[in-house]
Amino acid sequence: MTKLWEKGYSLNDEMEKFTVGDDFLLDQKLVKMDVIASIAHARMLAKIGILKEDEFARLKGALVEILRLYGEDKFHIEVEDEDVHTKVENYLTDRLGDLGKKIHTARSRNDQVIVDLRLYTKERLLEILKSLLRFCETLWEFSKENEGVIMPGRTHTQPAMPSSVGLWASALLESLLDDFILMRTAYDINNQCPLGSAASYGVPLDIDRQLTSDLLGFEKVQNNVLYANNSRGKTESIVLFALSQVMLDLSKLATDLILFSTREFGYFNLPEELCCGSSIMPQKKNPAGMELIRAKTSTMLSYLFQVTGTIKALPSGYNRDLQETKSPLLKGMDMVESSIKVCDLVISRLKVNKGVLDRSCTPEIFATDRALELVKEGKPFRDAYREVAANLDKLEITASYKDIFSRKHIGAAGNLGLPMLKDQIDSKTEWVGKEKRAFEARLEELMM
Amino acid sequence: MTKLWEKGYSLNDEMEKFTVGDDFLLDQKLVKMDVIASIAHARMLAKIGILKEDEFARLKGALVEILRLYGEDKFHIEVEDEDVHTKVENYLTDRLGDLGKKIHTARSRNDQVIVDLRLYTKERLLEILKSLLRFCETLWEFSKENEGVIMPGRTHTQPAMPSSVGLWASALLESLLDDFILMRTAYDINNQCPLGSAASYGVPLDIDRQLTSDLLGFEKVQNNVLYANNSRGKTESIVLFALSQVMLDLSKLATDLILFSTREFGYFNLPEELCCGSSIMPQKKNPAGMELIRAKTSTMLSYLFQVTGTIKALPSGYNRDLQETKSPLLKGMDMVESSIKVCDLVISRLKVNKGVLDRSCTPEIFATDRALELVKEGKPFRDAYREVAANLDKLEITASYKDIFSRKHIGAAGNLGLPMLKDQIDSKTEWVGKEKRAFEARLEELMM
Amino acid sequence: MTKLWEKGYSLNDEMEKFTVGDDFLLDQKLVKMDVIASIAHARMLAKIGILKEDEFARLKGALVEILRLYGEDKFHIEVEDEDVHTKVENYLTDRLGDLGKKIHTARSRNDQVIVDLRLYTKERLLEILKSLLRFCETLWEFSKENEGVIMPGRTHTQPAMPSSVGLWASALLESLLDDFILMRTAYDINNQCPLGSAASYGVPLDIDRQLTSDLLGFEKVQNNVLYANNSRGKTESIVLFALSQVMLDLSKLATDLILFSTREFGYFNLPEELCCGSSIMPQKKNPAGMELIRAKTSTMLSYLFQVTGTIKALPSGYNRDLQETKSPLLKGMDMVESSIKVCDLVISRLKVNKGVLDRSCTPEIFATDRALELVKEGKPFRDAYREVAANLDKLEITASYKDIFSRKHIGAAGNLGLPMLKDQIDSKTEWVGKEKRAFEARLEELMM
Amino acid sequence: MTKLWEKGYSLNDEMEKFTVGDDFLLDQKLVKMDVIASIAHARMLAKIGILKEDEFARLKGALVEILRLYGEDKFHIEVEDEDVHTKVENYLTDRLGDLGKKIHTARSRNDQVIVDLRLYTKERLLEILKSLLRFCETLWEFSKENEGVIMPGRTHTQPAMPSSVGLWASALLESLLDDFILMRTAYDINNQCPLGSAASYGVPLDIDRQLTSDLLGFEKVQNNVLYANNSRGKTESIVLFALSQVMLDLSKLATDLILFSTREFGYFNLPEELCCGSSIMPQKKNPAGMELIRAKTSTMLSYLFQVTGTIKALPSGYNRDLQETKSPLLKGMDMVESSIKVCDLVISRLKVNKGVLDRSCTPEIFATDRALELVKEGKPFRDAYREVAANLDKLEITASYKDIFSRKHIGAAGNLGLPMLKDQIDSKTEWVGKEKRAFEARLEELMM
Repeated sequence: MTKLWEKGYSLNDEMEKFTVGDDFLLDQKLVKMDVIASIAHARMLAKIGILKEDEFARLKGALVEILRLYGEDKFHIEVEDEDVHTKVENYLTDRLGDLGKKIHTARSRNDQVIVDLRLYTKERLLEILKSLLRFCETLWEFSKENEGVIMPGRTHTQPAMPSSVGLWASALLESLLDDFILMRTAYDINNQCPLGSAASYGVPLDIDRQLTSDLLGFEKVQNNVLYANNSRGKTESIVLFALSQVMLDLSKLATDLILFSTREFGYFNLPEELCCGSSIMPQKKNPAGMELIRAKTSTMLSYLFQVTGTIKALPSGYNRDLQETKSPLLKGMDMVESSIKVCDLVISRLKVNKGVLDRSCTPEIFATDRALELVKEGKPFRDAYREVAANLDKLEITASYKDIFSRKHIGAAGNLGLPMLKDQIDSKTEWVGKEKRAFEARLEELMM
Repeated sequence: MTKLWEKGYSLNDEMEKFTVGDDFLLDQKLVKMDVIASIAHARMLAKIGILKEDEFARLKGALVEILRLYGEDKFHIEVEDEDVHTKVENYLTDRLGDLGKKIHTARSRNDQVIVDLRLYTKERLLEILKSLLRFCETLWEFSKENEGVIMPGRTHTQPAMPSSVGLWASALLESLLDDFILMRTAYDINNQCPLGSAASYGVPLDIDRQLTSDLLGFEKVQNNVLYANNSRGKTESIVLFALSQVMLDLSKLATDLILFSTREFGYFNLPEELCCGSSIMPQKKNPAGMELIRAKTSTMLSYLFQVTGTIKALPSGYNRDLQETKSPLLKGMDMVESSIKVCDLVISRLKVNKGVLDRSCTPEIFATDRALELVKEGKPFRDAYREVAANLDKLEITASYKDIFSRKHIGAAGNLGLPMLKDQIDSKTEWVGKEKRAFEARLEELMM
Repeated sequence: MTKLWEKGYSLNDEMEKFTVGDDFLLDQKLVKMDVIASIAHARMLAKIGILKEDEFARLKGALVEILRLYGEDKFHIEVEDEDVHTKVENYLTDRLGDLGKKIHTARSRNDQVIVDLRLYTKERLLEILKSLLRFCETLWEFSKENEGVIMPGRTHTQPAMPSSVGLWASALLESLLDDFILMRTAYDINNQCPLGSAASYGVPLDIDRQLTSDLLGFEKVQNNVLYANNSRGKTESIVLFALSQVMLDLSKLATDLILFSTREFGYFNLPEELCCGSSIMPQKKNPAGMELIRAKTSTMLSYLFQVTGTIKALPSGYNRDLQETKSPLLKGMDMVESSIKVCDLVISRLKVNKGVLDRSCTPEIFATDRALELVKEGKPFRDAYREVAANLDKLEITASYKDIFSRKHIGAAGNLGLPMLKDQIDSKTEWVGKEKRAFEARLEELMM
Repeated sequence: MTKLWEKGYSLNDEMEKFTVGDDFLLDQKLVKMDVIASIAHARMLAKIGILKEDEFARLKGALVEILRLYGEDKFHIEVEDEDVHTKVENYLTDRLGDLGKKIHTARSRNDQVIVDLRLYTKERLLEILKSLLRFCETLWEFSKENEGVIMPGRTHTQPAMPSSVGLWASALLESLLDDFILMRTAYDINNQCPLGSAASYGVPLDIDRQLTSDLLGFEKVQNNVLYANNSRGKTESIVLFALSQVMLDLSKLATDLILFSTREFGYFNLPEELCCGSSIMPQKKNPAGMELIRAKTSTMLSYLFQVTGTIKALPSGYNRDLQETKSPLLKGMDMVESSIKVCDLVISRLKVNKGVLDRSCTPEIFATDRALELVKEGKPFRDAYREVAANLDKLEITASYKDIFSRKHIGAAGNLGLPMLKDQIDSKTEWVGKEKRAFEARLEELMM
């Protein structure tokens, strides 16, 4: 295929293979957004008089055709196409002759990559947020159902104080709701239209950047054209950090579940259809999914560090280094979504062994309760603490100690604030739905 | 010193040294907030009847005395004190006898550490934000002053298209304004009161968590008590990520300045009072500060990596691993503030060599201008591009090419949007001021 | 396909997709080594009487057939095959009935994965070492050719003292020779046979681990069976660290070349067939390959940190987390090899602009020479230094200053030690060749 | 204090504070090696005629005096001294006048820093290796003592197959012996003398680099002067990687111990004098030391990441960025040594609960034994596996299953190879001792 920048000499084969890398494969995911952004760009070129209205119509027709082919899995980028942008421009030129050669007026592949990634990221983040909120609902139901189930709260992996299954599960739920805020910020930072930044320095034409931004449903134009390019890699790392926080939360869940479902603990059972066996040991039911969640958290963090390591000390303006930031972003978004779904599956089928949990609440975890009883009787806390410490073998469990609902201060086992959490889930879900519908409507308008 | 948890046996000396580490040194920074949080906690204990009003008054008196000693540099935590919390409780018990032993009722060192760090982080973030906005103003002034100064825009470290010094500087400014958003989100996540979460599972007493939260000026109570503890390390990493983004931006500035101030480029001069010399080479004026900005960016990223690596796959509830997340947070905040200030200093004294910049705008960087002229004459862009490519030696610079103000689309050199940026700086500065005053007022009330 | 561990229930589809991940794709690379290791294992089972000799012969026949199919690209692992081990056992059972079901006696997939990866890594490392040494030779030739070409030595990116192109290039060469040592250590650590470790705890059969180790050409048996499994991930990280050091060296080369081939420096020219163009700027010849080297260095480091992050705090014995360490290892080895080759290509075609380099040696870089002349005349160095500093404008270049060959101490521009370096390259090349031939011979014997 | 590079203007105060950072504090550790290297340098200057013999004697006298002051804690580097090199030169000039100004002839602070760090690292690595081998001996004794103690071997954190306490402990021992190889390689790479590389480009004087290298006990001169400087950061990262591997091994130990000493598992007991308590819960004995080992592993990895991130894409020759690599190296060596010692303490006092371990070997972990019995009776392994899987509830423990010594193949519980491991520990210990004595002798000669 002709490269867009060919001018009388050919790139060395080995160098070509090296520089293209697997970019042509990754770009296969970006075809839809590349085409849509091209329609918006052409629409703008028509408005400022670079294209005639009928030229725009023919370009749009050919672009919509690409979308159709893509939908039918008939539009494939090959290594010699270099990337999606080249493939699309070459397709247009093949189909429309000179008219195809006009599409690239006033833009660079750089801002195309950025706009494609922004649009793709926006679409995927909305899907991820939906999955996240669905998982939050599963956790909410689970917390509600197990609100009154006592369990030994642990610190330092050791029995500490009385807790409840509801408290344990809704701690994760609240953490994910804070992650939502981070993801929302990442979503907003990503929601800026770079189109028109060209190679990093804009173009000497009166292009209408506000128009393309509006057509594509962005919240605003990313103003400074150099910043639009400097922010590549930066935006990716912001998204990846938010995703990392979700993974870190899931890794805590996974760690707890692996421990709590051992034979020795027995708090929970993972159903066998969610466990893998061993090729040599007939008895095995391994929590492989949870172990992979734990490992993929490191993978996600490595994506984040790959991107931040790449952009550190990079000079202003586009640098080819940025190509390497595409893969971690795309893989990271896939990874977090499948991880959320697997955890959702696990929580929705988790078997809670109430009897075991109850029996596991041995006297020592009520030592603090006993000390605070002494406080109520007038003993200074530190003295009460030492008295209990000296008499651990005499500790007895009273009914009130085990009454998890009697712990009533904000956020305690008896006062989880579940209605408030439900409200938060609901309002966030509503926002995601609205945002998604508005975005889809905008893109559909463009394609009509 | 007596450990709070001593009960008849002593910790092995080597293990003590290992587990305390440099925590007692780091805690020296947290004395003020530990004392303030103790006043709020005691106030609450009085309200719910655990302390009598006069007991509270005496405790508060002793706590305020610690603050005074601390202000006079007379309150030092030694390794045998283990940490600030032990030091303070022991001080109170020494001074007030049995009354001192009551201060720890209904709380754990865990939530003390968290609340201390939250308060300290809040105070420091407000200062950092102030420095950041001050630097934004310096960049704004610099952009304004150099709005019309042409410079070669570069991609791939090579001359690309015409740019301006104003465009270059305000790209950084806009990036920092996006960082402000990230830091604001980090600030909000941090602005939750963990007090009352105790060892991770709350306490069997009717404590008033809303009261302590309000007294300490938090935006809200961090609801789930287990989440309050699970969020340690998480919150730190969220703050460190926001700081990392600032450093990454500064590392781009540093990289540009190091390059642009070489003899070969000569775009800018760093004044000699901001450069370091060599012990062997008499002629040297090295941009050491900028190189350290570049390096410290890696250091900051390593802090982030340290914290995320620490919390990955940690089980629910407090774990001692979290102690290691204190140092990167405290150091990271110091680092970003000094880095911002050094960059502010550099930009405010940077010498712009207009003549060199003008001469550096050689014909090739106007190749795209020429191609777009041909487009205006009716040639399809790709043909125009190839024609220019074939005739690079014939490129001539026209006056209009160099008229940087003629580039008028949004975000181009001739339309940087400086008034809009000024508004953003101003409104953010106003918010920081208001928030800072409100926070300080709340803390002062407590100490009165 | 039947899972090896199926026993009456099916894995949930979503969980299956999640746990298999892209393992089945990665395993496609391991078919050859999996089959070869299976032949060795079967040979050993025959020796200890688990298999009859004719059973071994038939198993070997079928295994060799797989190799043939694989060579003809007709042996494909699908997602439902789970992994190469399952695919191979199922193939054997399909072909040989009950005999196929015997192959897995006394082994686990765990040690199969390890042995496959060790063998594959060994083969690849030998290829990478060959490429590395070939590049060292290119650098040696380049250094030799440019031994007498003066260039400004730089520190802090600024002109410092006189250097030579030979000194610059052979600095990289020596760094790569140190990397060879690291890679050699990684090679040795990897060169231990884990086979027989089974699920991590060996088997209650008198297997002959020494025999399989010898058959497969390993240097020794990895003794402790639990360590064999614990060392998974560890070995990968050791290999990746050695590869990272190579990449870090290449990133320094890339950084220098990007800078030194700018128009402003002009020390070197990258030939146009090794440069990429721009889609919008007709004049561009970008050092894209070198920028990607720089970026891929971050990618390689992220692989290292992914693996170390994964194994940190993993309990003893096999854990599924380790599956995620396969991809970075395989990708890392591919990446380093293509990166070395691209740099080899670049150095072998690099154009050295002697005139520019000579002219770039302006008086200031001889300031230290002048100071040391004053020292020879009896002035204390610090006084000489200050005198020169005060009279920088009077510095003049003398012929002796520019005589790069007159700098004769060990390792100076006039005494690079090239013959010694050639000897090192040669003896290392000889070792690699011998090791490679011996390994290949061993594997061929097994297949005969 | 006068800066070495002062020449008529002063560095801006804020910039000075920023560029010096905490370097002056870190340098306090390097005084001894800086002085020793200065003696060797002066000795060489005398040999080549730059110094007269009596000048050398006087310089040496003053340098030895510094060592004495340092030994008496009377030689302190202050922030205004900038670093140890400046402090020492200024001391010499104060004491000896013009003669002091001669010490810096033919060297740069750059190669001083490198040589100081190389010497310091060499000394510390030998100490660390000693601690490591001492810990290996403790593990060996522990393994020997518990060779016959059965324990459930685990995979996926779940019971898998029978193992022994000896197998578990000696797996760690073997891992540490592989780490020794990595540390030995790091030691060798570090064992090259950079002195004479000056600012990165050598000096125009006939210095005798071999002499200084020999005087200081290095194995060889680091040849290429530019490589000597380029290898800064690189060497640090090589050392840190080796240390990281030790920490990763310790983190596995810590993870196992935390799990195995929970009440639910009860395999081991950590004695109470090695555990920390809680400020609120009277019953707590927390494995804080082990949790910190786990966390410090992330810290160590972050040091490695910091250094590799710093040197990535750094141009050739000295850059100030490298200053930031000093702290992670120094801290990393301290950290690994205290971590090894704490683990040594824990293993030497660990209580093994044989009864619990025996009872924990429930029937399911012998499922594979049963399947292999069926194999011996002629059943193909896969059929045997399925038969056992279908009859798990009928599994019975036989005496032979629990006879851990009957597992006799290489590396199995009954054949740990302890004598071979003892030999390895002994020969390594001998090497360390010899190397240490030789190095110390060399340094003492210089000071005499």
